Amino acid sequence: MTSDELIARQRKGYSLEQDFYCSEEIFQQDIKRVISQKWLLVDHVSRIPEKGDYFLFEIANESIIIIRQNENTINGFFNVCRHRGSLICLQPEGNKKLLSCPYHAWTYGLDGALRQPPLMPADFDKSKFGLQKCHIKVCYGLIFVCLSNDSPPEFDKEYEEFAEVLDFHGLKDAKIAVKRDYPTAANWKLVVENFIECYHCAAAHPEYTHVHPKDQLLAMGAGPGSGPPDALKKYQATWDAWKEKAETLGHPTPEVIRDEASIDMAQLARLPINDRNFEAETKDGKRACNILMGQFNECDHGETAIQFNPIGYILASNDVAMMVRFTPRDATNTDVQFTWLVDGNAKETIDYDPDNVAWLWDVTTKQDKIIIENNFSGILSSRYRPGPYSTQEARVSTFIKWYLKELDNKPAL
Amino acid sequence: MTSDELIARQRKGYSLEQDFYCSEEIFQQDIKRVISQKWLLVDHVSRIPEKGDYFLFEIANESIIIIRQNENTINGFFNVCRHRGSLICLQPEGNKKLLSCPYHAWTYGLDGALRQPPLMPADFDKSKFGLQKCHIKVCYGLIFVCLSNDSPPEFDKEYEEFAEVLDFHGLKDAKIAVKRDYPTAANWKLVVENFIECYHCAAAHPEYTHVHPKDQLLAMGAGPGSGPPDALKKYQATWDAWKEKAETLGHPTPEVIRDEASIDMAQLARLPINDRNFEAETKDGKRACNILMGQFNECDHGETAIQFNPIGYILASNDVAMMVRFTPRDATNTDVQFTWLVDGNAKETIDYDPDNVAWLWDVTTKQDKIIIENNFSGILSSRYRPGPYSTQEARVSTFIKWYLKELDNKPAL
Amino acid sequence: MTSDELIARQRKGYSLEQDFYCSEEIFQQDIKRVISQKWLLVDHVSRIPEKGDYFLFEIANESIIIIRQNENTINGFFNVCRHRGSLICLQPEGNKKLLSCPYHAWTYGLDGALRQPPLMPADFDKSKFGLQKCHIKVCYGLIFVCLSNDSPPEFDKEYEEFAEVLDFHGLKDAKIAVKRDYPTAANWKLVVENFIECYHCAAAHPEYTHVHPKDQLLAMGAGPGSGPPDALKKYQATWDAWKEKAETLGHPTPEVIRDEASIDMAQLARLPINDRNFEAETKDGKRACNILMGQFNECDHGETAIQFNPIGYILASNDVAMMVRFTPRDATNTDVQFTWLVDGNAKETIDYDPDNVAWLWDVTTKQDKIIIENNFSGILSSRYRPGPYSTQEARVSTFIKWYLKELDNKPAL
Ligand code: FES
Ligand code: FES
Ligand code: FES
Repeated sequence: MTSDELIARQRKGYSLEQDFYCSEEIFQQDIKRVISQKWLLVDHVSRIPEKGDYFLFEIANESIIIIRQNENTINGFFNVCRHRGSLICLQPEGNKKLLSCPYHAWTYGLDGALRQPPLMPADFDKSKFGLQKCHIKVCYGLIFVCLSNDSPPEFDKEYEEFAEVLDFHGLKDAKIAVKRDYPTAANWKLVVENFIECYHCAAAHPEYTHVHPKDQLLAMGAGPGSGPPDALKKYQATWDAWKEKAETLGHPTPEVIRDEASIDMAQLARLPINDRNFEAETKDGKRACNILMGQFNECDHGETAIQFNPIGYILASNDVAMMVRFTPRDATNTDVQFTWLVDGNAKETIDYDPDNVAWLWDVTTKQDKIIIENNFSGILSSRYRPGPYSTQEARVSTFIKWYLKELDNKPAL
Repeated sequence: MTSDELIARQRKGYSLEQDFYCSEEIFQQDIKRVISQKWLLVDHVSRIPEKGDYFLFEIANESIIIIRQNENTINGFFNVCRHRGSLICLQPEGNKKLLSCPYHAWTYGLDGALRQPPLMPADFDKSKFGLQKCHIKVCYGLIFVCLSNDSPPEFDKEYEEFAEVLDFHGLKDAKIAVKRDYPTAANWKLVVENFIECYHCAAAHPEYTHVHPKDQLLAMGAGPGSGPPDALKKYQATWDAWKEKAETLGHPTPEVIRDEASIDMAQLARLPINDRNFEAETKDGKRACNILMGQFNECDHGETAIQFNPIGYILASNDVAMMVRFTPRDATNTDVQFTWLVDGNAKETIDYDPDNVAWLWDVTTKQDKIIIENNFSGILSSRYRPGPYSTQEARVSTFIKWYLKELDNKPAL
Repeated sequence: MTSDELIARQRKGYSLEQDFYCSEEIFQQDIKRVISQKWLLVDHVSRIPEKGDYFLFEIANESIIIIRQNENTINGFFNVCRHRGSLICLQPEGNKKLLSCPYHAWTYGLDGALRQPPLMPADFDKSKFGLQKCHIKVCYGLIFVCLSNDSPPEFDKEYEEFAEVLDFHGLKDAKIAVKRDYPTAANWKLVVENFIECYHCAAAHPEYTHVHPKDQLLAMGAGPGSGPPDALKKYQATWDAWKEKAETLGHPTPEVIRDEASIDMAQLARLPINDRNFEAETKDGKRACNILMGQFNECDHGETAIQFNPIGYILASNDVAMMVRFTPRDATNTDVQFTWLVDGNAKETIDYDPDNVAWLWDVTTKQDKIIIENNFSGILSSRYRPGPYSTQEARVSTFIKWYLKELDNKPAL
């Protein structure tokens, strides 16, 4: 079946047809038509503070060098030599004065320009053989890339409503406290679906349901828009009361929910952690880091949920901000990476314990990895049939519609 | 080449063309057209004696839950949740009061019926979302399943001539003494071919040729019909004399040999183990279990060979019955499982030693695993050419004809 | 894209399009149209000195038995039984009185003829079921095979200019001192490209550039024809002076350089190791073996470089000759094997130390393995673009033209 036929056949309000989760061909289209057309959140600037610091971002068959050219500029290059195609950077991260290919030593500046290699034919024009750039956008301390061969989608306008909150959280002055990887043997869409519904929380996540109250989990356990309307209605008073208190402290409480018609399904909300006065998503509700981030002078006991797109998120309390990255590797494997940020002045051991910072989402993501892999295994059966979504999976249903719409785009390749 | 072209090209009396053994596409057709249209012997009822006891039967991409609903009923369900497709049972065996999905806790009764899940849309009809049943048949203590989407083939009539012997062996009162797995890196058809000829016994199986006499191995070493007609003619007097003795004891000695035109190539015969008065297939010929099975009051020194179809067998002496299961996993891997049964009252250590029970076929199957894997490796060469069968491979030749006929079936999918 | 379209699209003087390095389909064509049409250097006769001694040569899906029938004859057979296709020899090397199949014991003489197997139908003609021969050629102690189903290419005439030098080196009286394998995870063409240019030597091979002088590496570091014309011109006087000295000693100094129009890109030259009077490619320039090979009575401080074809080479100084074999396994894996030969009378420990014999190319090949694998990884990117060759990669450029020409051959299969 072609992907067009599959798209036509897909039943509304139901999970995807099997091939969307398994087929290598559809995966190639996912990468070209969907993933490559988005701004992908890849990491925090504090990972590469010095000139020449770099790390590799690996996605599908691509390896991208993210390297600091100088104080103000970070570049993204495809990790492919213009001579005979060797990888240029071999280590996942490091520092380079110049980008020199390990094969024949073709050497590129930190701006990607090729220096004249020896012994080239007379008609060789080095200006035509600079490293291939990857679109890059750095703001609020966050690094985004876009793999597209063409113009990337508009960034500033798409996320202008996010600016105030991102700024308030002081992300640009943050540093990385912990980074953990959870490679998951499943199609990337199953990882996304899992993350944007809390229908499974009760059965699967005792720690998460310990931290968050039942009525909130039901109403918006995976962000606003994720729960049934009547549950939100019931919870609204609690939420409004909290917002009012936060605003009294001068903290912003904007709300954004974009649906399947949008480019990114972007989303933003601030809400209380729970009704037990928790300051952070920790076992005992105490801060995980002594120093609050950004402009939080007094704790508002809230958390911020941001979705840039279905594979890039930030979840932040007043003391810790967490970046979530789902990176497709192939049709059946996804790299899940969580990065926890704290204030740039915070000192490990003294101000925070990394295991405590990471606790809730580390245990929750390990649970999800198993759940998602078993979901994928079941889907391989000839008897898998798309099933209907509950009212607590509204955001998943939106995601499916968004994905099918995006897949239907046929960008010039 | 299409499978139709391959079928047309196949030379009679010769082994199969290369693609039949290697191609992933042909394997998919094997599963749909051949394997899924058969009653497959999967295990013995004593594996799941209590209500809620279950085990998983895994074949190709399918995982089937075989679970006891009550004293009288055993059900087979595809291990795929009707919600978003997760595996439901994760362990190879266990006990479940209810079948509850580990993802969002949709819960099914032991009859497969879905209990109302929370938060479903108003028009959700839970009666439409029960677990998908797998055809199942339990008789004489044996559990068979059929994967077909349509009606399964007729069972009772197909095997009615087998009833007396299966009953006489008392399989329904048996218990599992040993179960061993021999995963084999080869196409399932090579595993079958190996099992239904004794042309290789002399070169490969010293233990097997120690237990069985030469003239018998030649005449019917892989069951009746497996040897050359003149060898059978020569052996017939010995066989007839044994049958007469067995009948004097009141033991049945029926004979069934179905050819390539049949649904299953089913086969049944009883014959003496050897002419040295062996009671069992053991090193010294003594019983492997003190207690004889079923209605065997006195030992008749015979064995029973039953082929339900090319991937399911029972070989039984008076004290031990052995179930043989060849389960295709993919084009190049087959799960070989042997299960040895003894009388339900027999006690391990006191009445039988599991290693002694399993001895002959354990050592023989380990030898066959290596042989079959080397056969498969050789077939991968561009110079593999189908070769001619000897007169001692008559049953293999029949199998090839049967397989090509079955593959030519094009059931509605 | 078909391989015809890819060939048409290929830009001259640039590295190959991505699919040539990655596609499994193109690899199958490489094997059929290119590799199978060549005489492949596989090993030295001293590996199988006694009647019945054999080794396996494994390439792509093929396993070839190279076995000594008697003092004068070595045979090559496809390692596939004519009965049901089993591998016949299971060990990488050994000794066999007869070639007996481990499955049903069909037995072949060392000439490949089948002895009458038991129990075959009356019309079975054993003369039609001998082992399938692989073309084989043994000369100067070297064993070559050709996998073609048809007539192999002409050998004697193709290599007649090589005879004097091969004879002079006394290869037929040599013995194997060391053999080492460097399995490389890359397409075979990347392994070849790496071996026939010295553009990467400066950056990658400190030991190699220690042994050889800069001007020589530039002029002909990967054999004559590998460097830019002006560098050769500059080096020519040094080379000519050495040749004159060698000729005074009565040593041959022929030169062969065949281009892309030839069958094999064959090549032959003799040149000085360096200008520091090195006798061998060792750290200190002293001989690696006390005994000089063949007709070298006095050391001429030179080395001989022979290319039979792009996947088979000999590099020899006066004391040691090294065979180089690049064997394609699949589209993304190549077996690299180096075999070092010394005079047949040399004694290990007393006359040579194997580690010292192997030193330079062992360390260099380990470096190349990493380089080549990183080259291959980079080429997998969607942004890999064929790049231009330098003037020091002239021989690579020739190889690409030769390869595309050869791939365009469509031999009857
Ligand atoms: S491949 Fe990078 S310099 Fe040659
Ligand atoms: S997948 Fe089973 S309950 Fe959701
Ligand atoms: S496969 Fe070799 S003898 Fe049968």
